[in-house]
Amino acid sequence: MTSAAEGRVDGLIEGVRAGRVRDLARLISLIEDGSPQVPAILATLGQPAPGPRVIGLTGPPGVGKSTTTAALIAALRARGERVAVLAVDPSSPFSGGALLGDRIRMGQHATDDGVFIRSMASRGHLGGLAATTPAVVRVLAAAGFDTVLLETVGVGQSEVEVAASSDTTLVLLAPGLGDSIQAAKAGILEVGDILVVNKADRDGADATVRDLRGMIALGSREDGAWEPPVVRTVAATGEGMAELLAAVDAHGAWLATSGAGTERRVLRARNEIEALALAALRQRMERGDHGRRLDEAAVRVAAGELEPHAAAAEFIDGL
Amino acid sequence: MTSAAEGRVDGLIEGVRAGRVRDLARLISLIEDGSPQVPAILATLGQPAPGPRVIGLTGPPGVGKSTTTAALIAALRARGERVAVLAVDPSSPFSGGALLGDRIRMGQHATDDGVFIRSMASRGHLGGLAATTPAVVRVLAAAGFDTVLLETVGVGQSEVEVAASSDTTLVLLAPGLGDSIQAAKAGILEVGDILVVNKADRDGADATVRDLRGMIALGSREDGAWEPPVVRTVAATGEGMAELLAAVDAHGAWLATSGAGTERRVLRARNEIEALALAALRQRMERGDHGRRLDEAAVRVAAGELEPHAAAAEFIDGL
Repeated sequence: MTSAAEGRVDGLIEGVRAGRVRDLARLISLIEDGSPQVPAILATLGQPAPGPRVIGLTGPPGVGKSTTTAALIAALRARGERVAVLAVDPSSPFSGGALLGDRIRMGQHATDDGVFIRSMASRGHLGGLAATTPAVVRVLAAAGFDTVLLETVGVGQSEVEVAASSDTTLVLLAPGLGDSIQAAKAGILEVGDILVVNKADRDGADATVRDLRGMIALGSREDGAWEPPVVRTVAATGEGMAELLAAVDAHGAWLATSGAGTERRVLRARNEIEALALAALRQRMERGDHGRRLDEAAVRVAAGELEPHAAAAEFIDGL
Repeated sequence: MTSAAEGRVDGLIEGVRAGRVRDLARLISLIEDGSPQVPAILATLGQPAPGPRVIGLTGPPGVGKSTTTAALIAALRARGERVAVLAVDPSSPFSGGALLGDRIRMGQHATDDGVFIRSMASRGHLGGLAATTPAVVRVLAAAGFDTVLLETVGVGQSEVEVAASSDTTLVLLAPGLGDSIQAAKAGILEVGDILVVNKADRDGADATVRDLRGMIALGSREDGAWEPPVVRTVAATGEGMAELLAAVDAHGAWLATSGAGTERRVLRARNEIEALALAALRQRMERGDHGRRLDEAAVRVAAGELEPHAAAAEFIDGL
């Protein structure tokens, strides 16, 4: 590193520790871009234990995740906590363009310096969310945030990544979203520490709550395991938010006393190390001579001259 | 391999070539499980060039992907083609449970031996869809299928994976699905070779078609590049299916004459080799001494004693 670059990095670290939004945003971009300066910066910032509480919010489109996030911000701010929001967008891997809708909807908190809101691309950066989210959480810890809300749009893979990165995962549903949602429930139940039926003032809310409770009752659970509560909310009016926060706190207490919190943190660290190692290996594969070998093998596989498994084995031998 | 295992494998290969559903299903399971027998089996089956046409269908929940798939099956069967469907489900990585809804809805084709329908888990198997889908497509080619329909549920990452695995990607939308869908359009436009406005008999269809055409007109495009058509369908009644199939054929002709088809196949092969190589490396990381080193590093990272990037670098050195 040149001394000018060192100077910029020192300024960045200072800015992050002081909680300056511009420096926070710049460092998060460096993490997303896989900048070679990141490991040294993170080492300097240090690793707080246990660090901020990470609350994941996931669920299908239209259930009110952003409204719930905004209501949780308000409730946590009322307690005096500093709150960061990472909104994971289904952005394009081709354009890298992030969708700003969520940030705009959270505008009411935009002028509060106890609140930091950031959109993150769900892919396209090295190692994916498993590699970047823990690093960003550490940066937010260094900047003095108490709670990180990790909000993701969509169903499918992202809900699993949110659960893997969170201490407590809220799965949001709403009445009347049709059978594609019903179908997703099997997977959703397994990642949710707390199930939230939002828009609970709508028709069908009782049935949704009953269905979820039925599915939870059917699941087998070891002694002392956490049983996900079902909480009814109307995030738009704030109804049920106190109950939701109480459920989050109860889950946090269970994590601490049962040892499950430590287990989750170790598993998360394992995923992070593995994701970083695979990202580094992938980077090595893509570049220079290795990249050219990959190109040549791809042409032969596409022409039917080489079997892909054989190509992969040959490629690994040459790494 | 023991001679008994060899005998079973020979029987499996014979069964696949004869298009026997049970053997097809067994071989696909072996591929999903990452069985060590798979490379040898695929080598024996051979690599047809160019192989079956792969048509991807993606779009948000509720737009009618399964209904459209069923209507496409009927249209392709009417031409005498043999059709395979791979339905990618947002199944849980914890239970491995696949959702059967789509298969059940496709029941009308269940007794036709020119149609093969299979649910695939979207994750949880080695290397993900990028590694498994091309192998499954080769198996379906060996079994004499002309067209493979690759249907995926959800928005976000899976649409990108579908596009990467397909010759032609259909992106389905429907009128009146709200702003979360609007927001996803930016990403969707970039993976769609053909945009389908399904449920086009509903209010708002004209506006959706107009919006999409407007977005396409805004995009910059090189000379000779494909301009995605917008096709209106009512899959439930079969309306518009002839136009949709004509658009798919036109795209296929463009792929062949422009050279883009070969480019896509080479890129797909590159992704497949890379995914297989990374899966093999990941397997190596998880097992035996390496797995134990990873466990130990995770405990130290979780305790704040070791920086994750340093842990990853150390771990790679020891591989």
